[in-house]
Amino acid sequence: MVNTSVEKFEQLGYEVMLSDLYGMKWKAVYDEHDFPQRVNGDRLSFIHESGNAYATQTQTADVLAEQQKLLAADAVILQFPLWWYSMPAILKGWIERVYAFGFAYGYQNGTNQFRFGEGILKGKRALVSVYAGGPQADYGPRGINGPIEQLLFPLTHGALFYPGMEVMPTHVIYSSTFIQPEQVEDEKRKWQERLEDLFTDAPIAYRAQNGGDYPDRHVLAADIDPHRTGITAHITD
Amino acid sequence: MVNTSVEKFEQLGYEVMLSDLYGMKWKAVYDEHDFPQRVNGDRLSFIHESGNAYATQTQTADVLAEQQKLLAADAVILQFPLWWYSMPAILKGWIERVYAFGFAYGYQNGTNQFRFGEGILKGKRALVSVYAGGPQADYGPRGINGPIEQLLFPLTHGALFYPGMEVMPTHVIYSSTFIQPEQVEDEKRKWQERLEDLFTDAPIAYRAQNGGDYPDRHVLAADIDPHRTGITAHITD
Repeated sequence: MVNTSVEKFEQLGYEVMLSDLYGMKWKAVYDEHDFPQRVNGDRLSFIHESGNAYATQTQTADVLAEQQKLLAADAVILQFPLWWYSMPAILKGWIERVYAFGFAYGYQNGTNQFRFGEGILKGKRALVSVYAGGPQADYGPRGINGPIEQLLFPLTHGALFYPGMEVMPTHVIYSSTFIQPEQVEDEKRKWQERLEDLFTDAPIAYRAQNGGDYPDRHVLAADIDPHRTGITAHITD
Repeated sequence: MVNTSVEKFEQLGYEVMLSDLYGMKWKAVYDEHDFPQRVNGDRLSFIHESGNAYATQTQTADVLAEQQKLLAADAVILQFPLWWYSMPAILKGWIERVYAFGFAYGYQNGTNQFRFGEGILKGKRALVSVYAGGPQADYGPRGINGPIEQLLFPLTHGALFYPGMEVMPTHVIYSSTFIQPEQVEDEKRKWQERLEDLFTDAPIAYRAQNGGDYPDRHVLAADIDPHRTGITAHITD
């Protein structure tokens, strides 16, 4: 499926930057080695060390390279198998390490003033593609696993919309464990269509923090969908 | 906070088995090295290799040790900082590697017959404690991040309830980034109370797959909360 993405984008005339995390032997664990020049060598505060490393340009080369790819991109595509209802650890670790303080959070002034719809990645599109071993029914509106879009909300809303990207509806291949060769071709075709429409399809209508719906930047205004709570309250429909 | 847990449990007369993932240099990435004896050396199918390694007792020693800790435990406590609205990569990788096929999923007969309330960890309790940098308002019913219990649903429901554990309401310390020393003592006290009540407090009332609410084991019966969809439909209240 990743090869399909590369081929389709090249066919569309786009330049592709690929980060194959397993192939790159990406360091998954966010730890003291991410901060070669420590502010405090005794006690490790990730937020402070991250902010310092970003501001003083002392981040590790692998993290810097991924940040530069993000900045150069018009769209970010994440493709992964759904493992225990979320992304694999190696991808989670990519977010933790690449999303530095000052870059993806604490943008511009070290506060939360610019987030959820505004941030360093504003203007870019994000599209998540997952392969789920289980059947579609399990991920439906009343399916036992919970709806896929709610399970992935920490990623799509919390990590992609957060620094400003427009997030497309998640593309899912269900029952992927025992997929047959003829289905693979069909799934490739459906995925190619999603990629073709990447810049014209409508993104998930997450409410922007600074769009007026959150007057105090924390809680949804009382007059907006007054009886609605939870994840879905943050999407207009 | 972890030290507080150990001290409190020892004071209560319990035996504590501690897995300090960073301290252990836990291998976070689930990959081919988890299967020293491969079924198929060419193409890596995690579900098949995991099932084979578990059945033939060829799992790696670190994974086996964690499975044995889980089997020996009466309760499993997970303590971690909330990073990008979910658990750190190293803990996600612990789940991916320790939750073998045949053990945590595909239990007994390789199907999904026993899951969500039944499984190898049935009869044990699970309690998650997270430290969130942001304020409580952001995680409230209408808070911009989404409610903490919904953000963590992939973990609490999808990884702890799945193999049969009873999951306690999540314990959260908010605004933890700039917590003051005097607040730390207060938070320790509140956490100690949660540990004291671990075996008497009521767990989250997740619906069991085989309790009658999911007649086909996939979708909530039409007559149960007929207008409710999404994550919260799987909790009785």
